[in-house]
Amino acid sequence: MRMAGKASAQVIAMRGAGYYSSNTVGAKAVIDKAGDLVVEALGSMALEAAETTFSVCDYGAADGGTSLDMMRRLVDTVRQRAPGRAIQITYTDLPHNDFSALFRLTQGLLGDQAKPPIADTPNLYILGSGTSFYRQIVPDGTLNLGFSATAMHWLSKRPGLIADHVQAVGATPEEQALFRRQAMADWDTILLARARELAPGGKLVLANFCADEQGRYLGHTGGVNMFDEFARHWRDLWKAGRITEAEYRGATFQQFYKTPDEFAAPFRDPASAVAKAGLVLDHISTTVTACPYAADFARHGDAAAFARAYVPTLRSWSETVFAGALDAHRTAHERAAIVDAFYGAYEAEVAANPAGHAMDYVHCVTVISKKAGT
Amino acid sequence: MRMAGKASAQVIAMRGAGYYSSNTVGAKAVIDKAGDLVVEALGSMALEAAETTFSVCDYGAADGGTSLDMMRRLVDTVRQRAPGRAIQITYTDLPHNDFSALFRLTQGLLGDQAKPPIADTPNLYILGSGTSFYRQIVPDGTLNLGFSATAMHWLSKRPGLIADHVQAVGATPEEQALFRRQAMADWDTILLARARELAPGGKLVLANFCADEQGRYLGHTGGVNMFDEFARHWRDLWKAGRITEAEYRGATFQQFYKTPDEFAAPFRDPASAVAKAGLVLDHISTTVTACPYAADFARHGDAAAFARAYVPTLRSWSETVFAGALDAHRTAHERAAIVDAFYGAYEAEVAANPAGHAMDYVHCVTVISKKAGT
Repeated sequence: MRMAGKASAQVIAMRGAGYYSSNTVGAKAVIDKAGDLVVEALGSMALEAAETTFSVCDYGAADGGTSLDMMRRLVDTVRQRAPGRAIQITYTDLPHNDFSALFRLTQGLLGDQAKPPIADTPNLYILGSGTSFYRQIVPDGTLNLGFSATAMHWLSKRPGLIADHVQAVGATPEEQALFRRQAMADWDTILLARARELAPGGKLVLANFCADEQGRYLGHTGGVNMFDEFARHWRDLWKAGRITEAEYRGATFQQFYKTPDEFAAPFRDPASAVAKAGLVLDHISTTVTACPYAADFARHGDAAAFARAYVPTLRSWSETVFAGALDAHRTAHERAAIVDAFYGAYEAEVAANPAGHAMDYVHCVTVISKKAGT
Repeated sequence: MRMAGKASAQVIAMRGAGYYSSNTVGAKAVIDKAGDLVVEALGSMALEAAETTFSVCDYGAADGGTSLDMMRRLVDTVRQRAPGRAIQITYTDLPHNDFSALFRLTQGLLGDQAKPPIADTPNLYILGSGTSFYRQIVPDGTLNLGFSATAMHWLSKRPGLIADHVQAVGATPEEQALFRRQAMADWDTILLARARELAPGGKLVLANFCADEQGRYLGHTGGVNMFDEFARHWRDLWKAGRITEAEYRGATFQQFYKTPDEFAAPFRDPASAVAKAGLVLDHISTTVTACPYAADFARHGDAAAFARAYVPTLRSWSETVFAGALDAHRTAHERAAIVDAFYGAYEAEVAANPAGHAMDYVHCVTVISKKAGT
């Protein structure tokens, strides 16, 4: 669910030099930061005592590329304290994910060949699961460390359409309330599935997109608001008669960015199902990770080059929403022309007026533990 | 590694009606027969007693389609006796396998929609592993039932070339000895990896291609010898000057069909590493499964239709061997033309003279258990 890293390098590289490295550097930076909390979380576990397999899950892992260095740290940390203990890493994502890329990457058949493949670590077992994190993925009480980055903002279903915007951040209060309700129910579902999976004393380290204490969120950190740009360019197509009103209204991201208070809510209510399931919030913080494309632009100053690198990245994860909003009766050629016009207008705007465009990441990082004896 | 089943139906169906169903019916029939031994093997296990997850592996599972009905029987049998016990099925294959098809198939997103998806079974967890069965795939002592069908005839490496044939069945005694030695070492490697994985009392049910007590093997059960046909048509291309001598010699299947005695050998020697690892041979038998294409032909009598259905099936699993033997300097167009000519000649021969052509399966079925206390 998060951006695929090294495994897709060949395909992605075709879109232009630099795309690959910039595309993954931000996602990897977030995970590397969260890695400190993973190591800290391991510090409080009785790794040496148990004879069971030390079981790790990476939820929404894509090809596993961006979390690979963090996983190496995790494995090294466990191994130093419990040299004889088997370790299992279960990488999860939706069934259509490229699990072959994941297996090849972890076996050193793709990507960085300089380091020994993580799959060659003795007594380490790498598995994949094509099961959504809205369901239980491993058996009761077997999970020791659950990890997820930049995946759980995707809702289990779209609770409605956002008529005059594309994301809940720009929705009317009524629309936003629907999305918030779905997001809070989904958060419960995610946490209760993890509560069943976790062994007593097991922990989750989750880095999720959020709306932070200052109201910042992905692509909205002081400069131009990325989602407002999406909405404006989509609206322009409607005004120009290129798309219908239904198509205009239909473009709605199935996402919600919770605030830190919303992430914390189920833990603060002792009567909540999550609290009763034994989950405790050990840590919560927010972090902003600078857009690598804007950083590149600050170095090279070439607005057209920035626009050519930046907008196709936005397109890579947003295109299905806009293409999917178009009427099913349109020909493939029409659909492609409309979507090209949409991103073309965005790119032209960035090239003409690059200042303030940036897709900074804004994450809420939580560490959650399951109480022993629950 | 075995033929993909339902998940590939859409792609395969494009090659001609009937291809899909005939292609999988034989593979599935073998597995359904082995399913009786799986249920019998479960009968001797103390399923009720344990609190651990009941762990199943399907080694070389491809998309899981051909073993799906057998897995349903297995799950039902375990559940009847141990309703509360978690079950984990780990489907394994090489990393390039289409694991997305496997996950979609088991979740009911592909293939037969009439039965509830196996992944919807409560307290059942489906995982994938892109790790070769020449390596350990799950942690020590955690496997309860290992299954494999039509996969372990693939050697871990090719010990040499077969100069005047394409498969070890037609090799010189010296060449054959090299392949046999590799196959026996590989069998040890496979069994020792499984011995580590198996819990005490756990069992393996394996249905492998073999050369049976009467000397029969895949495509050699009394009529035309399929591998001799491959060799002859490949030799014809050399004689006609279409391929070089090096290309002629280079076409060699990385396979070996062991005899029942060879399958049994490590168990009969109490000093073998396999015996010392606690593995015991509970059952060994051979079985022939009739070629569905030849059966179709016996019904419809249309030789050209038989040839059009039969030879592309052979091509689907053999083409890489012949294409791979061609000189790297040849153009893609040249390579395609040679391979087309090769299968075209085979197809023309079957159409002209269909009697005796059949790819009957010949399997050796073994049930192996790990002694308690080892």
